Amino acid sequence: MFREELKVLDCTIRDGGLINNYQFTDELVKAVYRAACDSGVDIIELGKKLAVSDEYTREKYGKWNFCDEDDLKMVIDSYDSDYRPLIAVMFDVGRVDMSALQPADQSPIDMVRTACYVADTDKGINLAKRSKDLGYQTTINIMAPSAAIRTDLIEALQEVSKADEVDYLYLVDSYGAYYSEQVTDYLNLYKEYCPNKELGFHAHNNQQLAFANTQQAIIDGVNLLDATVNGIGRGAGNCNLELLLNFLKNPKFDVNPIYKTIQEHFVPLREEIEWGFNDIYGIGGYLNQHPRAAMKCRADKEKMNKCYDFLLECTSDV
Amino acid sequence: MFREELKVLDCTIRDGGLINNYQFTDELVKAVYRAACDSGVDIIELGKKLAVSDEYTREKYGKWNFCDEDDLKMVIDSYDSDYRPLIAVMFDVGRVDMSALQPADQSPIDMVRTACYVADTDKGINLAKRSKDLGYQTTINIMAPSAAIRTDLIEALQEVSKADEVDYLYLVDSYGAYYSEQVTDYLNLYKEYCPNKELGFHAHNNQQLAFANTQQAIIDGVNLLDATVNGIGRGAGNCNLELLLNFLKNPKFDVNPIYKTIQEHFVPLREEIEWGFNDIYGIGGYLNQHPRAAMKCRADKEKMNKCYDFLLECTSDV
Repeated sequence: MFREELKVLDCTIRDGGLINNYQFTDELVKAVYRAACDSGVDIIELGKKLAVSDEYTREKYGKWNFCDEDDLKMVIDSYDSDYRPLIAVMFDVGRVDMSALQPADQSPIDMVRTACYVADTDKGINLAKRSKDLGYQTTINIMAPSAAIRTDLIEALQEVSKADEVDYLYLVDSYGAYYSEQVTDYLNLYKEYCPNKELGFHAHNNQQLAFANTQQAIIDGVNLLDATVNGIGRGAGNCNLELLLNFLKNPKFDVNPIYKTIQEHFVPLREEIEWGFNDIYGIGGYLNQHPRAAMKCRADKEKMNKCYDFLLECTSDV
Repeated sequence: MFREELKVLDCTIRDGGLINNYQFTDELVKAVYRAACDSGVDIIELGKKLAVSDEYTREKYGKWNFCDEDDLKMVIDSYDSDYRPLIAVMFDVGRVDMSALQPADQSPIDMVRTACYVADTDKGINLAKRSKDLGYQTTINIMAPSAAIRTDLIEALQEVSKADEVDYLYLVDSYGAYYSEQVTDYLNLYKEYCPNKELGFHAHNNQQLAFANTQQAIIDGVNLLDATVNGIGRGAGNCNLELLLNFLKNPKFDVNPIYKTIQEHFVPLREEIEWGFNDIYGIGGYLNQHPRAAMKCRADKEKMNKCYDFLLECTSDV
């Protein structure tokens, strides 16, 4: 009925924060953490861990962009639970202060995920190595492989394969451009050129395929699955955690706390910020383009529902 | 790149009409017809063809519940096109007046699709036979097979197999309950017990899988695919026609007219009626239940966003 090795990573706060500059209330972050505990999710990613600077402040960019240990502890300590998911944070290449990362045994963080484009894979591996040296579980999440030149991607995969300090390699459908056949094709490539790593999968829902593609990744042997409460995430959002838990059938999971937190916290949140499939994102996904243009269109009240104009704009050769 | 035998049936008006009692304006129906012509869709279903009665009137239930020949001609004649899709209408078992169906060569209708539950399959076949005798292409769309007892379903498939007058047999995911593995499993059953029919597939989007499951059906050899403009349809709606045309890559299709009609007609329509995935339908789909309960919940302003309450209500043993 279920595959025991399958692990679910809730990246609600980290991917959702891309919509609102990580300006979530503490109450919401605590509610998501509590739901993760109660539903038996394996790992929860509570934000990015980037370097503060004069320009890049906690006030403007939100505390979950920086994930200070004290903030994480505040969330963890807010709920008394026998079961606790591992805590993950995300690194972006070029925006990290390694000196701010304590050794794992002195930190609430268990896993550091490093996101990088193909061209920056070596930099990403370097961050993963340094995180592993401090005792963390590590992942490399290569972004936008659908837009990478195949030979470059292969080279990146080979580099990851050589790095003992990387625990997981992620296939990331950054643009929501994949059909299931492409999920399979890219995973075959990842397995061929990086055969010694456990694989993860991170979907986007531009073409209403985030959940379906996550199922395809499971079929193809991926054992670490990203999902978010209510599918929240940049642009068209991610694989819905509640749909995924229903699908997985592992008795350790309980979907009810996820629906409870949707009802109590995400329904009101939808009044403030938008996420999820719509026509504009569907076009962007089909065209395998960065969600930047689609998000800009959706943010413009005049243009937000003009999908035909958006399609013409995106496909014009002029 | 593409499979030439694949045909697309636009059932926008017929399935969409289930939301608003077929109270579409003539302007909208004409716009959908025009988009179907311009985009190269193979077949367009413009409504149901049911019997009028004192209680079941055109005024109350909408003209597209009855599809009089004059109404169909009004739509067809409204647009001058070199290419025209075939015209389909739907029969519901027990609600049809066969005497109102003209011979095909005197009618604008080309295809009659008969929807029936497993228990009524023989009645459905009878309607299909009588339609075929009048010269129409015919389909049998067995509804809600996910809720049928397997042996009953097998018997129904065997009956369809014996009926030479049935051209297509449809797998219908009425409750949006299938994952791709179930699409494959049921299609294997359909092929085993009804090996002599071309197969069709009709999805619902309760779990955001209508488009993905339609892709799975293609992989499994189905050659007639239902979809609707913008995914309109009862409850969570259907497979989005625009996403499907993008996927199919057949040069005879052009997605632009579909996006044009979404922008011009479906964006305003969304202000009046609701369709598409939400949490309530997601729960209904997972539980393999008729959309009745979910639609009732969505129609109640107090309850419409209380997905956790809905889940508890649906899963309570009391």
